[in-house]
Amino acid sequence: MVFEQIELVEVGPRDGLQNEPDIIATDTKLALIGRMIDYGARRLEVASFVHPQRVPQMADAEAVIAGLPDRTDCTYIGLVLNKRGVLRALATREGGARGIDQVGCVVVASDTFGQKNQGQTIEQGIAETRAMLRFAREEGMRAQVTISAAFGCPFEGEVKHDTVLAIAEDLAAEAPEEIALADTIGVGTPWEAGELFGKLGALLGGKIPMRAHFHNTRGTGIANAWEAYKAGVRVFDASLGGLGGCPFAPRATGNIATEDLVYMMERSGVATGIDLEAAIAANKWFAGQLGRELPSAVARAA
Amino acid sequence: MVFEQIELVEVGPRDGLQNEPDIIATDTKLALIGRMIDYGARRLEVASFVHPQRVPQMADAEAVIAGLPDRTDCTYIGLVLNKRGVLRALATREGGARGIDQVGCVVVASDTFGQKNQGQTIEQGIAETRAMLRFAREEGMRAQVTISAAFGCPFEGEVKHDTVLAIAEDLAAEAPEEIALADTIGVGTPWEAGELFGKLGALLGGKIPMRAHFHNTRGTGIANAWEAYKAGVRVFDASLGGLGGCPFAPRATGNIATEDLVYMMERSGVATGIDLEAAIAANKWFAGQLGRELPSAVARAA
Repeated sequence: MVFEQIELVEVGPRDGLQNEPDIIATDTKLALIGRMIDYGARRLEVASFVHPQRVPQMADAEAVIAGLPDRTDCTYIGLVLNKRGVLRALATREGGARGIDQVGCVVVASDTFGQKNQGQTIEQGIAETRAMLRFAREEGMRAQVTISAAFGCPFEGEVKHDTVLAIAEDLAAEAPEEIALADTIGVGTPWEAGELFGKLGALLGGKIPMRAHFHNTRGTGIANAWEAYKAGVRVFDASLGGLGGCPFAPRATGNIATEDLVYMMERSGVATGIDLEAAIAANKWFAGQLGRELPSAVARAA
Repeated sequence: MVFEQIELVEVGPRDGLQNEPDIIATDTKLALIGRMIDYGARRLEVASFVHPQRVPQMADAEAVIAGLPDRTDCTYIGLVLNKRGVLRALATREGGARGIDQVGCVVVASDTFGQKNQGQTIEQGIAETRAMLRFAREEGMRAQVTISAAFGCPFEGEVKHDTVLAIAEDLAAEAPEEIALADTIGVGTPWEAGELFGKLGALLGGKIPMRAHFHNTRGTGIANAWEAYKAGVRVFDASLGGLGGCPFAPRATGNIATEDLVYMMERSGVATGIDLEAAIAANKWFAGQLGRELPSAVARAA
């Protein structure tokens, strides 16, 4: 047995819900976040500061954040795509409010995907994100960054490792709290996860922690997480039940499920801090709210 | 990239179908097997020789076998649980018929599970199986063996590695064509898959090939297959679409899906001999026959 520990970032409230077609009430989102904290999540991506017309499900970001439990042992993350998003994140703290603890920035590792998703080439994405990271630091806001489509692009197909590593090197110059690689469309394999995180770890030299964000769209998410773990990753995104579909594969599953990651890790001797039974109970409750079963294999087998 | 090759054993017609509640017509089974051969499967578990009252879905074993394409490039496997099963397998060749090429025997690595499933303790299972392996060899029938519940038992929980290895050592004395470890209830993790197959490989010393049989009940099946591959396994069971539920977890998924294994392996530079697009097409056709979607993540994302 190995005896290590990972940190799980519960991304259900943001990445998990953003593609849900029906708007979920703010109170339901807060109840969901409360259950996540109850099952042991201590770092949660709670909302994104994007234009409500682009992602209607996130239109109540400020209301969700205003209702978060005022806990000192939790880190609340808000996703930001531009400086305006950082300003909104900062505004959640005004008047002494609890607000957001950390912003998450994103650089897309594909010119075509980046232009469609955020109106930016890779180069523009790096420049804007470096400016955001600097601005956040000046304003006293913690910031991390994710390189998305790092394992493949829905438009361009293959994404070269050198492209991903060059982005990471540029971003590392701003000393973000963490650099994540995201398999946004779920095409990665464990072979590639081991390779790419191995190279990233060598590049970062232990100075900046790595984080992994996998989707289970093609059934490889848990395998990728294990290989990333073996390559030195100790922070993993996951969502309750595997919430979070892929807009490019509407019938496919989404993020790796919190329950599945926890089962695999804990049974391998790796502590996660998550109470699996409580997570499965939260899954059943939220599945009732949505009126459908969630993809998590562990929850279905329970 | 690694550049290797694996052999896939398509177990959909037997392990995949045996728990289907509605009896599938012999012609439909034969059409399914035909499509499997079309997508590249060259070794197929086509039936089991068990009592029709125990597994009604396999009552037409002889009829299925009589209808198999007479191909010299395919290996047809029939599962046998006792000497009577071997005799039935041998009978399929009578009168110069094509028949079965190989029998698959099973020893359960748990006294409780073995007694409930086959009325045998581990010790009795080993003795009976050794006798079956000898008898098959004397009769000119190829034979391999699977150690089931090798990663955990639904009744006893943990199964010790030493128990599994002791069974393997006893069976190796009969020189079966192959020794497989099966995670019958889908509880294994990639950590354990690497450990256990590493130990088995050391025990067998390359003299008897290893095979892996994983279920995806808790989302770890593909991760386990990759670790088993890295531990030296080159033969993998899989079923089209992930057919084959677990009777102990009725809502859970079954065998690892052929499509998911092929996607993961091929994208990692490991050849499988399977045409993925044709397998996905076969999935869609058979899902139509069953009237429900099959679990394969790759097919759902297609």
